[in-house]
Amino acid sequence: MGMTMTQKILAAHARLDNVTAGQLIEADLDLVLGNDVTAPVAIKEMQKVKGNGVFDKDKIALVPDHFTPNKDIKSAEHCKCVRDFAYEHDITNYFEIGEMGIEHALLPEKGLVVAGDVVIGADSHTCTYGALGAFSTGVGSTDMAAGMATGKAWFKVPSALKFELVGKPAEWVSGKDIILHIIGKIGVDGALYKSMEFTGEGISHLTMDDRFSMANMAIEAGAKNGIFPVDEKVLEYIKEHSSKAYKVYEADDDAVYDETYVIDLSALKPTVAFPHLPENTRTIDEVGDIKIDQVVIGSCTNGRIEDLRTAAKVLAGRKVAKGMRVIVFPATQAIYLQAMEEGLLSTFIKAGAVVSTPTCGPCLGGHMGILAAGERAVATTNRNFVGRMGHVESEVYLASPAVAAASAVTGKISGPKELGL
Amino acid sequence: MGMTMTQKILAAHARLDNVTAGQLIEADLDLVLGNDVTAPVAIKEMQKVKGNGVFDKDKIALVPDHFTPNKDIKSAEHCKCVRDFAYEHDITNYFEIGEMGIEHALLPEKGLVVAGDVVIGADSHTCTYGALGAFSTGVGSTDMAAGMATGKAWFKVPSALKFELVGKPAEWVSGKDIILHIIGKIGVDGALYKSMEFTGEGISHLTMDDRFSMANMAIEAGAKNGIFPVDEKVLEYIKEHSSKAYKVYEADDDAVYDETYVIDLSALKPTVAFPHLPENTRTIDEVGDIKIDQVVIGSCTNGRIEDLRTAAKVLAGRKVAKGMRVIVFPATQAIYLQAMEEGLLSTFIKAGAVVSTPTCGPCLGGHMGILAAGERAVATTNRNFVGRMGHVESEVYLASPAVAAASAVTGKISGPKELGL
Repeated sequence: MGMTMTQKILAAHARLDNVTAGQLIEADLDLVLGNDVTAPVAIKEMQKVKGNGVFDKDKIALVPDHFTPNKDIKSAEHCKCVRDFAYEHDITNYFEIGEMGIEHALLPEKGLVVAGDVVIGADSHTCTYGALGAFSTGVGSTDMAAGMATGKAWFKVPSALKFELVGKPAEWVSGKDIILHIIGKIGVDGALYKSMEFTGEGISHLTMDDRFSMANMAIEAGAKNGIFPVDEKVLEYIKEHSSKAYKVYEADDDAVYDETYVIDLSALKPTVAFPHLPENTRTIDEVGDIKIDQVVIGSCTNGRIEDLRTAAKVLAGRKVAKGMRVIVFPATQAIYLQAMEEGLLSTFIKAGAVVSTPTCGPCLGGHMGILAAGERAVATTNRNFVGRMGHVESEVYLASPAVAAASAVTGKISGPKELGL
Repeated sequence: MGMTMTQKILAAHARLDNVTAGQLIEADLDLVLGNDVTAPVAIKEMQKVKGNGVFDKDKIALVPDHFTPNKDIKSAEHCKCVRDFAYEHDITNYFEIGEMGIEHALLPEKGLVVAGDVVIGADSHTCTYGALGAFSTGVGSTDMAAGMATGKAWFKVPSALKFELVGKPAEWVSGKDIILHIIGKIGVDGALYKSMEFTGEGISHLTMDDRFSMANMAIEAGAKNGIFPVDEKVLEYIKEHSSKAYKVYEADDDAVYDETYVIDLSALKPTVAFPHLPENTRTIDEVGDIKIDQVVIGSCTNGRIEDLRTAAKVLAGRKVAKGMRVIVFPATQAIYLQAMEEGLLSTFIKAGAVVSTPTCGPCLGGHMGILAAGERAVATTNRNFVGRMGHVESEVYLASPAVAAASAVTGKISGPKELGL
């Protein structure tokens, strides 16, 4: 029986010729990731065993991105814990503010993940790196601790859903719209503990940033991971960013999938997830008249350069609606600088938005844009659970950068077409 | 008996020919200011009296700058309180994020304060506008409430200290160094409830941003207000920013001062205030070897364009020390945009600093750069009290933008000369 792309990567890392869905395996790890929220828990766990070292100082990434620049004394202490650990163990890939950004945008940019890797991260959106043809998944802090100490992790080999993408998306339809459409179709538990394997010629129309956005939200359908084939665009990205050896895995022709979905990209429209679940999707022509208070453009889902270019294209020469708070979060320092050099940040400021340092910020209700009771935000982030961005009586509508930017101008949920674009 | 400059402004606003130190007067207000910390208290106070309106919707400024973009649910609720009040009373000068900045940089920039005005603000650094030849002072939230309702406030007329500035400051010696030197000389209660009136030909060498920085810190010597004469530079600034009528007041020749200090600007050196009081000053050659963790460049004291230009001049082509967190806060959106257009922000990012949205941020231990126990920051802010920027066991060293930037590069408290500048 053939293996899926995910299964082949896991088999190779477990040094097995073959694995099947449901099998328990121990796999070698190419990278272990933690942030300022999760790493302190893992570090304290590791420190319980006297003399515990790290398996490989080059294969651990520590990115204090959630509550930084330090929100409060507690977050300052968490960051200090991570920093002290990084210095003590001479961790190569510890990143201080000024040289970093949001973890899931930063790691690919720094070339720390390449095709064929197995990566665990103590953050649910670690699945992002599937865009590069890697197996990557979120784990708890204790698994992170074990991973840092041993360089290995146990997995139950997942079965898979196949998403065959066909056709070319219309203008203003991005990876975010595609993944929201898919989650709307299969539900937030539609891929529970399964791989979401994306295939089909439609992928050729998707930028790397589209793909990062889609793989990132695989977890929002409950998936263990999301993964894309390694095509020319992926290879180009890897060669540009990394000097690590990569390996291309392909699903066997006779791989077994629990289900195959054919998604016609040309039929999709800008899509919005209504409160309070990512599966509550509506196309832009079904949203009705929803007045909003705040727009957030950024996050590990949509804070990359293509996302900012799209938002700037919509905002150029326009003004955000009176009273609207629009906060833009370039995902990394490199993206911030590039966006500045391309004139995108200038467009945002002139339109009446503010531009933050790279941080997870309000996405998880952290800081830098928290909502009061009764307030509504359109956000390019990945979760709209109750209270996710602030008060339990606030609401988050998930959308693409194009929809977020258009909504900022009109003051209600809108697509770029409402601006005549 | 003649009057000081401050006394003349107060007399005119009390519709009296003459006032003397210690006299209680009721003065007309040209502007009443509040922020997201203080205005909610004032608003709730006002709302206790049913039917209470505002005395003049054009003469109230509401600037939610302290915990914005909203740090947490509580700050979101405070901002909502201010916003709702502003909309209900049709307040002309309510500023939303995206159109604002730090209050004491914003109000002069928006032309809301001019020479001869009497301004109260529920924020201690309201004394900043003395740079424009206005009487301005910080008050409590209940005084702000009364001011908003009646357009009047009671004052005890202050006596004055005269600071006669002579000579020209050397390169890298700024207004911040001058005011730190003065506070070091007279102490944090050296001007208690008095006016600090700056005079002398030395003023001609000071930029407006130097003067804002000095007037801003008058409160750090306990002063009721700090005030500068209205020279050509002030008139030019007012004409550039405001269409309001201004009035120039000058101290009488026979005005009485409690004390006169002659300050030779040419003899001053870059000056640093050590923990935990602004009066604990040392010149840069006396600081010794103080390793630091964080540098903050910004605030109502030193977040203006000249400040950023100076910092960028020091950081250009250099890198911040390994492990150093450097956070730059342009004081307003306009300053942010100008700094971007001048290439200053690019210089900061390339050097390894992060650039925040305009906010008071860590200055008052708010957010965006809070210190853990044992950490030290050099900051261009105005207060270094115990726990001011975070943990009670953290330390803040107050300095100019030039010293802050040089310290960012060396990793310890340093002047630009240590970089060969």
